Amino acid sequence: MNLNQILEGIKPLDESAKIKASARLDSLIKPIGSLGKLEDIAIQIAGITGETINSVEKKCTIIMAADNGVVDEGVSTAPKEITAIQTINILKGLAGISVLSRQAKADFKVIDMGISSNIQHKDLISKKIKLGTENITKGPAMTVEEAINAIKVGFDTVEELKNRGYNLLGTGEMGIGNTTTSSAILMALTGSNVDESVGKGAGMTDEGLENKKRVILKALEINEPDKNDPIDVLSKVGGLDIAGLVGCFLGAAYYRLPIVIDGVISSAAALVAYRMNPLTKEYMIPSHFSKELAYKHIMDALGLESSLNLNMRLGEGTGCPLMFHIVESAAAIIKEMATFDELSMDSDFLVDIR
Amino acid sequence: MNLNQILEGIKPLDESAKIKASARLDSLIKPIGSLGKLEDIAIQIAGITGETINSVEKKCTIIMAADNGVVDEGVSTAPKEITAIQTINILKGLAGISVLSRQAKADFKVIDMGISSNIQHKDLISKKIKLGTENITKGPAMTVEEAINAIKVGFDTVEELKNRGYNLLGTGEMGIGNTTTSSAILMALTGSNVDESVGKGAGMTDEGLENKKRVILKALEINEPDKNDPIDVLSKVGGLDIAGLVGCFLGAAYYRLPIVIDGVISSAAALVAYRMNPLTKEYMIPSHFSKELAYKHIMDALGLESSLNLNMRLGEGTGCPLMFHIVESAAAIIKEMATFDELSMDSDFLVDIR
Repeated sequence: MNLNQILEGIKPLDESAKIKASARLDSLIKPIGSLGKLEDIAIQIAGITGETINSVEKKCTIIMAADNGVVDEGVSTAPKEITAIQTINILKGLAGISVLSRQAKADFKVIDMGISSNIQHKDLISKKIKLGTENITKGPAMTVEEAINAIKVGFDTVEELKNRGYNLLGTGEMGIGNTTTSSAILMALTGSNVDESVGKGAGMTDEGLENKKRVILKALEINEPDKNDPIDVLSKVGGLDIAGLVGCFLGAAYYRLPIVIDGVISSAAALVAYRMNPLTKEYMIPSHFSKELAYKHIMDALGLESSLNLNMRLGEGTGCPLMFHIVESAAAIIKEMATFDELSMDSDFLVDIR
Repeated sequence: MNLNQILEGIKPLDESAKIKASARLDSLIKPIGSLGKLEDIAIQIAGITGETINSVEKKCTIIMAADNGVVDEGVSTAPKEITAIQTINILKGLAGISVLSRQAKADFKVIDMGISSNIQHKDLISKKIKLGTENITKGPAMTVEEAINAIKVGFDTVEELKNRGYNLLGTGEMGIGNTTTSSAILMALTGSNVDESVGKGAGMTDEGLENKKRVILKALEINEPDKNDPIDVLSKVGGLDIAGLVGCFLGAAYYRLPIVIDGVISSAAALVAYRMNPLTKEYMIPSHFSKELAYKHIMDALGLESSLNLNMRLGEGTGCPLMFHIVESAAAIIKEMATFDELSMDSDFLVDIR
């Protein structure tokens, strides 16, 4: 399947299923609309699957790991070797996403999209496009062909998870330097200014932040990404982790699975997918409001609002297992709460409580 | 134990345990502080129990049910019979709190504090103080003695749950008319004005809202509650459900258990408890940002910030099981994530990733 076939294969949500879900929610023994976003999510999932009642119990966060050549410019406080080290820590069950996934009874898959060393672990899925991207202050991060290949890896991963019965996905990443590429994508796609688009990432000095801004501005100047061509933006100033996640968002929309957005890197990938086909947004579920500055502006560009306000900025996909519980709760409400009719309340009551 | 003994028995959090928890969190393989409120909650629970590592797996939401005489003034779109009906629905496992508790593998206890009819269910704990409060536009809701007895019920419930091994509590309620009493408490305790303190509850017309505001102003005028005397405010313009929940917050602080705040009614009770002894706040964990207007102002008065932004306004305690998962995740992080030392990373790395 080529990229055009994927983009053309993405269809809108099933409006009739959404209407049926909405009617059922309004018939439950509660004031209309009083479960807020739990109701919105239940309706969204009905539109995705075409069914009013849904199971979302088999959950998986896809973690794309890759290195970024721009780290040579000193944009991160951590050395790039941390990408490989932390990828292994995640797989060993020791990192934040590992612990939170276990707590949520969720799985995760880690894919090597372009870590700059050849690491191995029995559960690491190697789909390396190359040993990290190029330095974006000197030219494009990758070729268009490499970007499309990376997207295809994400897309194929979703297909496989769908075939294995997963019904709720999440998006995570590991890649030193990827708040830099995310901010560059935001600026390239929306024209937002550098001061509202670039934050301190995992933690840096004010001086480090000024350098990071200069680096991003230089990358945009050198590469001249075309804001109307998301693949051009992605390949020139993005990363292999982000490209893989773009493929996940396209895949979730194509194969009709709800997919949770984590923080700023994951949302940058969501924005690229949205610009490739706006229908992808209907399959996305935001999770937490990341403390990283660019997040708010990316969400504004997507027109989405997060549900968890936890001051988190770790990445790895850590917002996803936390959000899975909310999504499962939404699915439980529409499935298990009683309706007024089932309780044979008389119709006066029904009007009154509503 | 009398009320003074309870209030004097409430101690601050264990600062040394908080410092140890904070140090452990800073030693985990993540940028310092990057798990935001998950870290704050882990530190808070350490301060509550005195231990760095804690289990919060045995969870219970306490649901206080009672009727409010002020319903005679037309402040609710639902008839007061709904209090009894919905209390039974909760116990039958059919309501929002029932479904969400099941989903979170949490228990709930329902206590009849003053439902206006004599209903029975094998799991309903009857502690009825009286058959609903008096109409607050004509005099006090209850006597000071009744208020203190209701507080004692909540306090004793926490003691029993502590003895049965519960380590995380939630607060819920069922009582038609209780957004009215909650708003009255907010105004009496803080002097906030009627337009920022009174919302539409489970749903009403603009005309209904104006009536509700008039009713509350009249209740405050007739009763003249003393803003410096929380028991005076509670007994004059509160409810038996709220009084029971005040006892839960006092009990959680006395018996050193973390306790989750749900929506506007639960937070009004939290504010009364806080005014009785400010140390109670250190044991509280807010959950969702209720859509009901008074909620924001009560949280401001408490100086607390909610974590879930779900546009919910159902009550019953429905925010608690959703928040339990976040609290359990916080406990898992500090227990299960690896430290830099355990991974024998060299100290340069340690500095770098931080």
